[in-house]
Order: sequence, then C-alpha cells, then structure tokens
Amino acid sequence: MCRWLAYTGSPVLIREALYTPQHSLIDQSLHSRLGAETTNGDGFGLGWYDESPTPGVFRSVEPAWNDQNLHELAAHVRSRLFCAHVRAAIGSAVQQTNCHPFRHDRWLWMHNGFINGFPILKRELALAIDATLYPEIAGQTDSEMLFFLALTFGLESDPIEAVGRALGHVEELARRRGVNHPFQGTIATSDGSRIWVFRYSSEGNSRSLFFSRDVRTLRYLYPERQILQELSDDARLVVSEPIGDLPGAWTAVPEASCGVIGEGRDELLPFVVKSPATVFSMAAMETGAPLRPVGG
Amino acid sequence: MCRWLAYTGSPVLIREALYTPQHSLIDQSLHSRLGAETTNGDGFGLGWYDESPTPGVFRSVEPAWNDQNLHELAAHVRSRLFCAHVRAAIGSAVQQTNCHPFRHDRWLWMHNGFINGFPILKRELALAIDATLYPEIAGQTDSEMLFFLALTFGLESDPIEAVGRALGHVEELARRRGVNHPFQGTIATSDGSRIWVFRYSSEGNSRSLFFSRDVRTLRYLYPERQILQELSDDARLVVSEPIGDLPGAWTAVPEASCGVIGEGRDELLPFVVKSPATVFSMAAMETGAPLRPVGG
Amino acid sequence: MCRWLAYTGSPVLIREALYTPQHSLIDQSLHSRLGAETTNGDGFGLGWYDESPTPGVFRSVEPAWNDQNLHELAAHVRSRLFCAHVRAAIGSAVQQTNCHPFRHDRWLWMHNGFINGFPILKRELALAIDATLYPEIAGQTDSEMLFFLALTFGLESDPIEAVGRALGHVEELARRRGVNHPFQGTIATSDGSRIWVFRYSSEGNSRSLFFSRDVRTLRYLYPERQILQELSDDARLVVSEPIGDLPGAWTAVPEASCGVIGEGRDELLPFVVKSPATVFSMAAMETGAPLRPVGG
Amino acid sequence: MCRWLAYTGSPVLIREALYTPQHSLIDQSLHSRLGAETTNGDGFGLGWYDESPTPGVFRSVEPAWNDQNLHELAAHVRSRLFCAHVRAAIGSAVQQTNCHPFRHDRWLWMHNGFINGFPILKRELALAIDATLYPEIAGQTDSEMLFFLALTFGLESDPIEAVGRALGHVEELARRRGVNHPFQGTIATSDGSRIWVFRYSSEGNSRSLFFSRDVRTLRYLYPERQILQELSDDARLVVSEPIGDLPGAWTAVPEASCGVIGEGRDELLPFVVKSPATVFSMAAMETGAPLRPVGG
Repeated sequence: MCRWLAYTGSPVLIREALYTPQHSLIDQSLHSRLGAETTNGDGFGLGWYDESPTPGVFRSVEPAWNDQNLHELAAHVRSRLFCAHVRAAIGSAVQQTNCHPFRHDRWLWMHNGFINGFPILKRELALAIDATLYPEIAGQTDSEMLFFLALTFGLESDPIEAVGRALGHVEELARRRGVNHPFQGTIATSDGSRIWVFRYSSEGNSRSLFFSRDVRTLRYLYPERQILQELSDDARLVVSEPIGDLPGAWTAVPEASCGVIGEGRDELLPFVVKSPATVFSMAAMETGAPLRPVGG
Repeated sequence: MCRWLAYTGSPVLIREALYTPQHSLIDQSLHSRLGAETTNGDGFGLGWYDESPTPGVFRSVEPAWNDQNLHELAAHVRSRLFCAHVRAAIGSAVQQTNCHPFRHDRWLWMHNGFINGFPILKRELALAIDATLYPEIAGQTDSEMLFFLALTFGLESDPIEAVGRALGHVEELARRRGVNHPFQGTIATSDGSRIWVFRYSSEGNSRSLFFSRDVRTLRYLYPERQILQELSDDARLVVSEPIGDLPGAWTAVPEASCGVIGEGRDELLPFVVKSPATVFSMAAMETGAPLRPVGG
Repeated sequence: MCRWLAYTGSPVLIREALYTPQHSLIDQSLHSRLGAETTNGDGFGLGWYDESPTPGVFRSVEPAWNDQNLHELAAHVRSRLFCAHVRAAIGSAVQQTNCHPFRHDRWLWMHNGFINGFPILKRELALAIDATLYPEIAGQTDSEMLFFLALTFGLESDPIEAVGRALGHVEELARRRGVNHPFQGTIATSDGSRIWVFRYSSEGNSRSLFFSRDVRTLRYLYPERQILQELSDDARLVVSEPIGDLPGAWTAVPEASCGVIGEGRDELLPFVVKSPATVFSMAAMETGAPLRPVGG
Repeated sequence: MCRWLAYTGSPVLIREALYTPQHSLIDQSLHSRLGAETTNGDGFGLGWYDESPTPGVFRSVEPAWNDQNLHELAAHVRSRLFCAHVRAAIGSAVQQTNCHPFRHDRWLWMHNGFINGFPILKRELALAIDATLYPEIAGQTDSEMLFFLALTFGLESDPIEAVGRALGHVEELARRRGVNHPFQGTIATSDGSRIWVFRYSSEGNSRSLFFSRDVRTLRYLYPERQILQELSDDARLVVSEPIGDLPGAWTAVPEASCGVIGEGRDELLPFVVKSPATVFSMAAMETGAPLRPVGG
C-alpha cells in the first residue's frame, strides 16, 4: 500500500536517500515494483532528527514525485536519522493528518500495510487508547491508531514489547469480532537514537522489507561509489523495497522479525506478538468497557 | 470563529447568495464584521440539494476568497436549498474533513462556535456516539462530533429534540468534568426539505444569527432589486451576519431560539436544552462506560 | 503524457463518462494502458457547458483518482457537452493554470502531447500571440501556448484552419531553430456547440485517439446496457483511449485526421498543417520581430 | 499588498524571526497594520542560504498562519541569511510559481507592491527579458517579471544599477503607453552574501520599510532580551513593518532609498531610477522590437 525508508548513520543530505538512488523512494512513489500498488501518490511524509528536542516533520498531500518543497528540503537538510514514507491510501482521506510519519514527543512512526476490518474494530481500538493520549489522535488511519496503541502499551520504554502487545491486542479483538488476518505490514519507529523495524502479518505473508548490507562490505564491493566513502561504518538503511539494483547490497528481513539499529545496536530478532487473552478481564468485555490489559 | 449561510426557496444560482451581495459570505471570509475573528480563511464548504438522493458537498482548505473552483461552481450550479460555510480554525487542522458542512446520508450540518474544553471531553463524547456511526467520523472537530451526537440522539426523526439532547449531553458531561460554558454557537442542519437553525450558548451570550425578512416585504421595500423579483415568496436566507446593509432586510434570531424553514414551515421557537442528568446511570460514569442515556 | 475525453449528446451526469466505465478516465489517471505514461496524476480538469454564457471549469492539482470534489461534482452536474483531462506533467509546474481544459470566452481547449524543444521555441511562440490575448496567458505550458496561437490564427471563426496554421507556425519556427518533430499529440476544442478533435504529429506517429461508435449500433450490440438507452442517437465520446472493453464500441481516429461532432455534424476529415513559409516576411526573422503571417 | 522580511547575521533558527516576535511575519499574514491589506493570506515563501550552491526555497499556496510545514521548517532550519514573504494577491493566481522569493541561481528576489497597468505593459516587458532567461519565467506576476528584467540589466554584477535600470525601463514604457505611477513598492534581493533592499515608487509615496537598529544599541536598550545576546553585532533585519513594539528598535527606510547589508557592508543610499530614454533606439519602438537598451 505504501513504501518507506529509514536511515541512521553519519549525517547525510536527505536527498542522497530520497532522490539520488536509481530506484529511490521518489521513484517508488510512481513505479513501485514490490508493493501492493505500483503508484504511491496519495501524499508523503518526512521526519528527521537534529539537535532539537523533537524531530521535524514535513507532510504533504501531493504525490511525492512532483512536490517541489520536498525536493528543496531534501537538498538542504542533513540528518543522522530520518524516516520517509510515500502513501497509497485505502479508503481514508488524503490529508496531512493521515500521512506518515506520525509524531508524539520524540517518537516517529511509519507503517506499510493495514488493519483488516478496521471500520469494525476502530471504535474498540480507540477505547483502548490511553485517555490522556486520545485527544492527540489527529487523523483517521489504522496506522496512527496502532501508534497510539503502541504508546499506550509502553512504546517509549520498551518498543518491541509494546508493538508486540499492540498487535496482540488487535489480533485478540479481531478474533472476538470475527475478523480474519487482522494485521498486515511493516513498521518503523524511532526515538531519535535508534530505529526499530518490524515485519509481521497475522497470515504469515508480510509486506517486503530490506536492510542495506554492512557499509564496509558495500565499500569493498563498490569502491567506485562516492557516497559509500562518506558514510560511517554503522550507517544503515531499512526500506520497503531496495532503492537500487546493486547485487549484494540488500538483505531481506525475514518474516516475523524485528530489527534495532543505531547507537551501537545492529540486531535482527524474531518478533512475537503478545496475546492479551490471558490477562483480559472478561467482565470488561461484557460491559463494553475498554479492552485494556489488567496489570499491564 | 466561522460564518455560514443557508438558503431555501426557488432555485437560484448559488453565486447570488455567495458572491453577488455587497457583504457576501466570500467577503465575510476576508472581512467579517460580527464574528469572533475578522478572517475566516481556514477552508470552506458548500452543500447543495438537487434531484440526487444525497446532497453534493464541495469543500476545500483554501480561503474561500481565492478559490477559483468555488467561484466556478457557484456560477454554474442552481439549487433550491444550499448551505455554505467559511472556517476560522481554532486548533484543529485545516483539512477537508474538518470543513463544514458535514454530511450523513441526506443530512448536512454546519456550526459556528465551539465546545469549550473539547480536548478534555472529546473521548467521552466519542464514546457516546452510536457504534455504527463511529467509523464515519472523518475529522477532528467538535462540530462534527456534535453532528454525530445529534444523529445518535435522533436527528433524522426529530431534529429539535435531538439537538437539544446532544447539547444537554455536552453540558452534563462538562459539568461532571468541571468545564464551564461548554457550548457556544449557531447550528444549521437540513435534510433537503427543511432547514433547522439554532442559536444557543451555555453562557446565554451566543454568536450572532439573522434571517432575511419575508420576500414580499422586501419586494415592497426594494422594488428595484431584480433578484427579489425572481425569488419565490417563501425564499429565506439564514446567515451568521447580514450579507448586505439594506435597512429592514434582516432580523436577528433571539438568544436560545431555533427556527424551521422550508416546505411550508416558517417558524421561530424557543430552544431548550434537554438535560440527561435524570436518566444517566451513575454507575456507568464510575466504570468509565459511555455516557449514554438510559431508555433513550 | 495525458489522457482526455470529450462528450456531446443528450445531457448526462458527468460521472457516467468519468467514473462509471470500467476503464474510466479516473481509472486511466492511475492505470493508463495506451499512454506514454501509466500514471496521469499531476492534476486534472473538467469543463462543461450549460445555459450560462461561458462554460464552467473545475481544475485541481490533486490526482484525479483521489479528488473528492471532482467525485461530487461529477455526481451532481449534468451536461450535454463536456471535456475532461488528466495530466502527466513534463517539466512544468503542477498548478491549476497548467491544467486543461484552458478557457477563452466560450472556448475550451485540451491537448495530449507536447511541443518538442519548447524552451527553445517558447519566446518566439509567445511573440506570435496576438498582443491583446497575451496578458491572458496564465500558465507555463506548451498546450496553453498552442491554444492562444490557435486563437490568434482565428480559432473562433474557423477551427480547423486555425489549428492547421498554428501547428504550421510551430513547425516552421522549429525548422528554423533546428528542432526536430516539433509537434506531437491530440487536441480537442469546443465552443459549446460542437467539438473539434485533432490527431497529428510532425513525425507521423501520433498519440492514440478513439471515438465511440454510433449509438444506434451500440444499442443493437449491447441492448442490456441501460446508459445506451438513455443517450440520444447523436451522442458521441472522443477519448485518448477506450474507457471500456466492449468489442466494436470504439473506432480509432486515423493518423493526421480531424473530426467534428455536435449539432448535426459528425465528420472525420484529413488534417493538413498549413505551412506559413511562403507568407513570412524573412526580414522580420532577421530583426527578431514576431513570426507573424503577412496578410493573415 | 504583501509583507516581507530579510535577515543577515549570525545563524539563527528561522522561527526566531518568523514566529517568535510579538507581531511576527506570521502574525502580519493575518493582521498586518501598515500594509495596503490587513490579510496576507494568498501563499507565502521562504528562501534561505546554507553551504549549498543555491539557496533553499519553500513556497506554498496556503496562508502562512496555518501552514504546519512552514512551522516545522522554521523550527528546525538555521540560517545566516534568509528571506520570507507573505502574499496578498491582486489578480494573479494563488500558485507556488507566483509566490516570492523568486530564485535564479544564487539570487533571491522579493517584492511588495505592483506595476500599475501590468496587463497593458506585460507583453512588452516580457520582450525586454533576455532571450536566454525568458523560458525561466514560471509564473504570472509583475514581481517575477521585474526580477528577470533586473537580471537582464545586470543584477548579478551591479544590483543597484540593475534595479535602477529595470525600474527606469518600466517607467519609460509606461510613459509611452500612458500608464501613470507605474511602479510602487519595496524590493529585497540577495546573492547569499549580501542583501540589497529598495524603497521606491513612481509617485513618491512608497510602501513602508524598516530596518532593525544596531544590535549593540539594542542590547544596551533591552539587556533582558536573550535573543539579542545570541546575535552577532552585524545582525540586521529589514521588514515591511516592525515585528515588535520595542521603542527605538526600528528605523524607517527613507523614501527613494536603497540599503546594502551583510559581509561588512551596512549602508543606506539614495536610490535613483535610470531612465533609458536617451539610449533607446526609437526605430525599435516603431517596429515593435523589444525595448532593449542600446550599448547596455
């Protein structure tokens, strides 16, 4: 449905990731090869970290391929950690508040995929959002709802646990409401220090996700590429689909995995959804109260 | 905060109400005289009825004064019942889903004013929305929430009762949460046959609202005005502020009133908010369950 | 580059041509089959005639496939003659003034294709525009320039002659400036009574163009199609590419042809570009004066 | 008509000039005090210099006061020289290509005011633009035309002379075409090293223009203002109208003056328009050839 990329490493002009590559994210906005749709023209977003307390976010409803302002920004802003997303809407409005990345304090969140049966589940998912966070929901999308659900479940203290519990909550609710294969997709989230990425779907057949090979290996393979000389050894890109055709440059993230990169971490782990079933108060279900975990 | 107008009568080109008058709604978008803000430049909307089963709605985030498409539409579309609104946003995003009029089936809804303390009340108001209507909420505004609350309380069968109960619900919830003067404003709603308008505020000091004098009287007063010759005897405009300076042409709607116009009705009535206090289940309040009226 | 359609016949809701067909123009905005580009997402436009002295024009920079307002308009406006265009920009900005159809008084103009070497030729083409028309040029495109060139050469009195001379002018100028294959494309223009369409390219290999078969034949072939029962016998659609897959429903316009439909005319003619070479003042060329025909 | 500001000095977050001040440019977009219009809501632009070869330009058609992206950019981008402009359109379309600042290579250009009788003069002004620059004209405005005229007359080598000759050209052409008071306004232009500002009108009654007092003086007057401690001694703001009410902080630029700031220059000079009358080839006028200076 959408395509995204996330970068951490030595500061680079954002255009080096967004525009320069042969099959860049901007090119993917018009001609995606691996996505569910070839066109991702329903808005876009860019989030970047600098020395400010919160990341900058630039979002627009125009197709990324013809947004002059994105082109300008990408040519003038350097960042050591940034996220970009091109959107293919499925039902919800094309408006900035539906564009990724979503932001809460220092956190950014992007998603490619969907919650199946979202209209059926939306209200109960909204009720599970922490009441102090609820007024911050600005758009209509399943992706933003997931973000706030993950925040509710502790994203800021343990991202992998929180995403696991958020998706577990979605799956449990879907089971009770008779919705099959409720979650599909890939997720990236960051606090400005690290990036956590997830590839998961309830049906076990997830949207694609790739990370770039180790920069030292890439330099060895492609000594003529100037940009590789400029990148730090720990630079890493995670992308919905490869932004170039260099053999050996990209590695697929396995099904049901999550990764952590940045500030010395560079790990790929199995990702397990945390079913809330055992801890739910069944009484709460009966009375229509929010599906909130007990002792969570 | 905003300015609006609603018309019913013989079919006219929409521009006759929207552009032609000296102090037209388009002029009010730039230079409101009686509004809380002089500029109403944060988007606009137009809803019009024709022979189709649902009304057409045209909404845009541009200021009305420089929207070329609105100008074209108004010059080419005739309607016997239409609503137009220019917005001055207070906090929520400038996006089409936040622009009035809002639509549900044959119903349109516009509001000038606000729910005080909306961030505090928003979640509990959302919970009071009928679960089948909940997924239709597309934007972030207090005005749209009120629409769905009124629909929940029976707008389609008894508009005055439903608006009274919706505002009563808001006031009761506000009282429990310690929010003063929770509702302010004027409302227009229509099913394509009639228009219901409301002027009310919890503090008893409401936004302005006017209706045009009887067309026969106006013709007598201003025989040289061509447009008055073309209008049917029952034509009526209701406006946030007069769109011209003709003495005797406009009558203020009294505080705490509602009016009904169209299809042979032409009434002005006292408007009474229906407090839900006596029918609330206090237990529901304690457990965090939705504030829904019992036996409602 | 772009896709367009033009309709004349009994009044229909615009959506019947724009949205309802299987491979409608809206679908072509996302998935063109025969165009130079599959995506035509850089704005769109709709022009329609009614009883007003000038046609209405609705243009937007959003992709047609997700423009809610176009969807509304098409569902509520009926017209007996209308034009619609989805754009794939090649270099010029995505802005309303670059969207087709262009309008001058009662005339509309759409183009799919390009003037090759336009930056080289632009200034001299602009100088050839009638001085009283020059200030009306609102955008940057070759297509709009052609429109004003055709107006300069008498579009309003003899459309086929004027387009022939306009393209002849372009070709002659291109020859002098060393630009090969200067014109490519299809054109539609209307005064609200008739539609003139053109298929031509300097290289003799033009963008596709089709017209719908005679309505009586179509009714015979497809008696179950309700819309065909509602159309008048003289209804005709001209399209960049067929909007459906009905065998026998579409006929290709031959290379280097023009057609006239509406108000009793229904003709297909060879189209000949009128070279201005013999009438140019060579001296004018030398001094840099406008390339205007003498005695034209 | 419009409001603008230009800054040079030690690098600051752009928001310090654009948002933080009490009567900031963003506030002026909604409530200008000294402008011809109180509302400047027809788009805006920001141009800023950094280490890149050309300045960044961010322009939008939304009112500046509700553009979320401008807010983000201003909170995250630091610059030692930047220009910002809020627009009140007079006739031309609200589109990015009509928003200031305009850019050519390293040069930016902003204007507040107008060319009187522009529709009458436009074609002949366009003909005076250097033929190699002509295809770069992207919008419709008098302001952009002036920029290209100044470039034609040597802006890049001698800005004061070039602006003087450009305005002289406008005035001479206007005289011949019977247009009174042809130029009105203030101009700012920069190459990234310095900023040149102009206040001039043919009638001798120009739009307002102010520059900030010497930073050392301001620090002495307002020792409690933190931002003044951070600015370099040579920091200078030039504004259409003061962005705050500090007594003694702003000095009006006199009628018919120009100023130069940046890189060690800090001058205010009389500004004299250079009439081209004596150098025109009258024969060229007769034949309709461009009004280009001879020997220029």
